[in-house]
Amino acid sequence: MSIELVSASVTGDAVQIARQDGRTMVFPAIWLRDNCRCSACRHANGQRLFEITDLPRDLALQQASIQDGRLRLVWTPDDHISEFEASWLAAHELGGELRAARREQPVLWDRSLIDALPAADWNLLRNDPAVELGWLDKYAAYGFGLLRNVPAETGMVEVVGNHLGFVRVTNYGSLFDVISVPKPNNLAYTAVGLGVHSDNPYREPTPGVQLLHCLESNAPGGDTLLVDGFHAAEVLRRENPAGFELLTQLPLRFRFRDAKTDLQAEAPLIGLDFDGAVKEIHFNNRSADILDAPVDLVAPWYAAYRNFAEILKRPEMELVFRLGPGDLVVMMNERALHGRTAFDPSLGRRHLQGCYIDKDGIESRRRVLRRQLGLSKDLAA
Amino acid sequence: MSIELVSASVTGDAVQIARQDGRTMVFPAIWLRDNCRCSACRHANGQRLFEITDLPRDLALQQASIQDGRLRLVWTPDDHISEFEASWLAAHELGGELRAARREQPVLWDRSLIDALPAADWNLLRNDPAVELGWLDKYAAYGFGLLRNVPAETGMVEVVGNHLGFVRVTNYGSLFDVISVPKPNNLAYTAVGLGVHSDNPYREPTPGVQLLHCLESNAPGGDTLLVDGFHAAEVLRRENPAGFELLTQLPLRFRFRDAKTDLQAEAPLIGLDFDGAVKEIHFNNRSADILDAPVDLVAPWYAAYRNFAEILKRPEMELVFRLGPGDLVVMMNERALHGRTAFDPSLGRRHLQGCYIDKDGIESRRRVLRRQLGLSKDLAA
Repeated sequence: MSIELVSASVTGDAVQIARQDGRTMVFPAIWLRDNCRCSACRHANGQRLFEITDLPRDLALQQASIQDGRLRLVWTPDDHISEFEASWLAAHELGGELRAARREQPVLWDRSLIDALPAADWNLLRNDPAVELGWLDKYAAYGFGLLRNVPAETGMVEVVGNHLGFVRVTNYGSLFDVISVPKPNNLAYTAVGLGVHSDNPYREPTPGVQLLHCLESNAPGGDTLLVDGFHAAEVLRRENPAGFELLTQLPLRFRFRDAKTDLQAEAPLIGLDFDGAVKEIHFNNRSADILDAPVDLVAPWYAAYRNFAEILKRPEMELVFRLGPGDLVVMMNERALHGRTAFDPSLGRRHLQGCYIDKDGIESRRRVLRRQLGLSKDLAA
Repeated sequence: MSIELVSASVTGDAVQIARQDGRTMVFPAIWLRDNCRCSACRHANGQRLFEITDLPRDLALQQASIQDGRLRLVWTPDDHISEFEASWLAAHELGGELRAARREQPVLWDRSLIDALPAADWNLLRNDPAVELGWLDKYAAYGFGLLRNVPAETGMVEVVGNHLGFVRVTNYGSLFDVISVPKPNNLAYTAVGLGVHSDNPYREPTPGVQLLHCLESNAPGGDTLLVDGFHAAEVLRRENPAGFELLTQLPLRFRFRDAKTDLQAEAPLIGLDFDGAVKEIHFNNRSADILDAPVDLVAPWYAAYRNFAEILKRPEMELVFRLGPGDLVVMMNERALHGRTAFDPSLGRRHLQGCYIDKDGIESRRRVLRRQLGLSKDLAA
């Protein structure tokens, strides 16, 4: 659907543009000037070549017109000329609803997703960009994805991590073994069950993406649990708005210590973005430290915390499946909360290897694949 | 100063504790129960062994008393017993002002810091934990620190990064060369001057800490600029509270693209923590993308943006110094904004190597050094 521009006029410090379809678009002058696409304003690599303070203090519009289908602006006092394509303007139209409509929405899920797990075969994926993009689209929508047939070999999790993005090294190394050991510095390295949680909320930044790769799994128990933390937060928002509000406002400190490490970070259990959408969940009973808050908010916060924890434990929220050797799960650590049932290490072995990657790398990979496959709707260039 | 507890009583769902010094401390019951230090509740490694939903729904206090100087609580319905040291309780007393007093405050600075640059000799630092801790304390207060006499050899920046924390690998690799090159994918790799900025706000997470190591510097120009972004934000808050508010509320998208990469992230220019303190600055004219906001907020936001940029350019805010070969600067990337003056690559060479490390690693190192040197005031154990 192509947009046609009919006329443009300057009103106060904004430009009004009439479109053939009858709609009017309004753009503030300073916004248009700052986004000028000309080669004096933008380097060929896309970076802006001026600073905001380089623009004239008394910047104003001399003239706005439509020429050859494009918006053409002439500025004063410097006679600078800016031109904008109709499609670019339409793609960046301002307004709260339009902003919301442009945002990718998560697809909330529950235990019924067991019938449609977002999965792909590792060998197909790494050889076929369309398969990989399809899988990454599901990962983006659901907050996790499964890979099948990843060779059950030590270190493969890091290979997959560095394929999808960039592995983050921590005090645990570039990868960690989830296996029952004596004198564990972390309860993950025991055979006890673990309620669903986000990993390492005591880090700043909290790991964005976690990979877990199953090498061995023949101990009774040790099933994997996944819960959509965004879904649980939306349930809380609906059922207990005041409690939801408290969990978004009061920060909780998380902490982890061993002989060589002392990590501390604060975050609210539910983090919102600037539009009020749920952006990240920090939930980990083991490393939750001491709530430091005004005394009268403490009991209400705890009531909301328990409420949220109960929602996370509702059977209908819980996706339960078993990782077998060669299965690898990639999770948005601050959305797809994970846990496991207890297992009996005397009757078999359970060995996972994990690593973390940063969010930006895997998101970039998805955008680049879209571009390579000609699917990009990117009009921002 | 030791705290002595005199008596304890249960009032509603809280415990009131009278101290010898005449003060009364109040702790909600659920908070005390969740923070129980006993070996059934906490693993030897410090991790909590129960989930909030494991506590009885009808949890209440049977009895509160002072025994052997400690607070002793008996819970119903399960007869669980919790004991708390007086010093632990005093260290975690609840209340807004106490919370504020416990927080480490940044020391705001300006160009006069040139006379007292937070610097240390790399060889002394790496062999003397007290020197290292002293330097890390200054880094924490000022948001940056200099290291002198780091061998001017390729790759040393990564050695230093992995000494202080853990290097973050990105599409630039584990380190990057800041040197004038043909066809740069980033303006940093040219000879133009760069206004002060935070690096890579188009990443999620934004790099927490940047290291820049000077290998060569004999081109005219190319001086280093540093500005305390927290200080500039406080100046804006004082001089233009409405503008400050807008910059903390509206997110701006940042973007970087090249053949293999497409990175996008959103952040407000000024990020606040839960107490309203300035926590992070994202400021980068080159990678700032298109403001997507309600149309009536756009012009006011731009006025505030320009105002903030002008404050960052005030000569009294700007710390100017020259990195020589062997100098290495470690900066909190979201606080100590950095830039450079233009240089003439035809008259000499300027070659820096840089890398990023995550915030948590260097913060952990400081805590562990405090612990090792017996300086820890940590009563949370």
